[in-house]
Amino acid sequence: MNFMHALSAAWHERNTLLCVGLDPDPTRFPSPLKERPQAIFEFCRAIVDATADLVCCFKPQIAHFAAQRAEDQLEALIQHIHTRHPMTPVILDAKRGDIGSTAEQYAIEAFERFQADAITVNPYLGRDAIEPFLSYADKGVILLCRTSNPGGSDLQLLDVGGEKLYERVARLVSTQWNQSGQCALVVGATFPAEIARVRQLTGDMPLLVPGIGAQGGDIESTVKAGCTAAGKGLMINSSRAILYASDGEDYVAAARSVAQRTRDAINRYRPGD
Amino acid sequence: MNFMHALSAAWHERNTLLCVGLDPDPTRFPSPLKERPQAIFEFCRAIVDATADLVCCFKPQIAHFAAQRAEDQLEALIQHIHTRHPMTPVILDAKRGDIGSTAEQYAIEAFERFQADAITVNPYLGRDAIEPFLSYADKGVILLCRTSNPGGSDLQLLDVGGEKLYERVARLVSTQWNQSGQCALVVGATFPAEIARVRQLTGDMPLLVPGIGAQGGDIESTVKAGCTAAGKGLMINSSRAILYASDGEDYVAAARSVAQRTRDAINRYRPGD
Repeated sequence: MNFMHALSAAWHERNTLLCVGLDPDPTRFPSPLKERPQAIFEFCRAIVDATADLVCCFKPQIAHFAAQRAEDQLEALIQHIHTRHPMTPVILDAKRGDIGSTAEQYAIEAFERFQADAITVNPYLGRDAIEPFLSYADKGVILLCRTSNPGGSDLQLLDVGGEKLYERVARLVSTQWNQSGQCALVVGATFPAEIARVRQLTGDMPLLVPGIGAQGGDIESTVKAGCTAAGKGLMINSSRAILYASDGEDYVAAARSVAQRTRDAINRYRPGD
Repeated sequence: MNFMHALSAAWHERNTLLCVGLDPDPTRFPSPLKERPQAIFEFCRAIVDATADLVCCFKPQIAHFAAQRAEDQLEALIQHIHTRHPMTPVILDAKRGDIGSTAEQYAIEAFERFQADAITVNPYLGRDAIEPFLSYADKGVILLCRTSNPGGSDLQLLDVGGEKLYERVARLVSTQWNQSGQCALVVGATFPAEIARVRQLTGDMPLLVPGIGAQGGDIESTVKAGCTAAGKGLMINSSRAILYASDGEDYVAAARSVAQRTRDAINRYRPGD
């Protein structure tokens, strides 16, 4: 699968910009599930199967698996998505960043071991730290630009000579690091004006937007700020609001219902095709 | 173990600033070892046991284990170090960085699952992204400041109002993020003038310095630029030059010999106690 092609096809054919984030937290699983040995895999698989027709991509967050010693369940989950939902790309949310020789190992982890279609990476180490990921020609490389957390402003809003650091990252990626067309950026939904600025700087580059739902970002302003003229270009992520829509045995139906409402709310504000 | 106390004790009592980095690459292991099921653990354990009296800390690099599906061997290795070399702290080189709720999961991964004494983290997401690590009061949190790779200059040398971004990171950590005394910084050996600048900005804060050995950094200028007045304050990392000093069956003795020479070369340039 080519990540950018599959993402584009999902936008067009399924008419959705929603990304469901898979951040499994066993303490929030419904009680009967909690005790099962593969609870993390089973929980995520149920969410995936209930929402696959509503999303343009899935985004498992690796720390939630690593903290539970559950890398095997993450492997099984991604394999399940590829098998059962072959048109739906998988972003491994890992925010890796290291010098070239180590980045090669992280690329093996993400793309060969876990078979992800794209990975999130941190730009602080510069261009040669992302090249090992770019050397997998079909894969997507999604760089942190403007993050949705309070501390994101500590460095990202520093003025670096007439523009903010996050704007410089957007420009560097757009004009220099993205020659192969594999790059995308992370821009938090908590800052719509900055989404608009990144959209202006990057043309039609895909933007992964976390921060709606549990983190409080507004859907209308996110969509209006971030969509391309054709009404695409966004992967709007929601994790906890969907995964934990109910803590009862109806959690699958509840997750689908919230995912559907979220997709529809997003579509309400998209410019027409 | 309290990381900062153990590090300080190792500097004083063992008279060494050397950190051995554990970046296992099975393709470079001696042939008889390559085929063994726990080859990664066995290789690293042999290096550890042969060099423990020469180092102030060990630094396993997690990507090299994750790429090989060998998290269990990393767990076993850190447990071995704690058991056999209880005065030697372990830095998990993972360069994690994510928003608070996810950083909590990475902290569980590093400190509860792997039982590391310290972790390397990326500052791009700001202060709240490192707080979950700081909430483990005995642990060290080592932030990237100036990295040793070519692309490190892309962002880290940007002027942010009269100083470079890496200087701002050093100042932020030193004056605001380090109230509990748990922080240290990563500064590459390839830029001695910048090590000196970070030393000037951070008082006696420990600096983890990669980049000697395979990456070409110079020991004399690193030590002269980075030592505190008391001749301490540095963890000077060497990985590949020690691990792969020989690809024959004498690799353990060869590793010890290079580690010893490196420790002695470092000590030659330290200001006296």
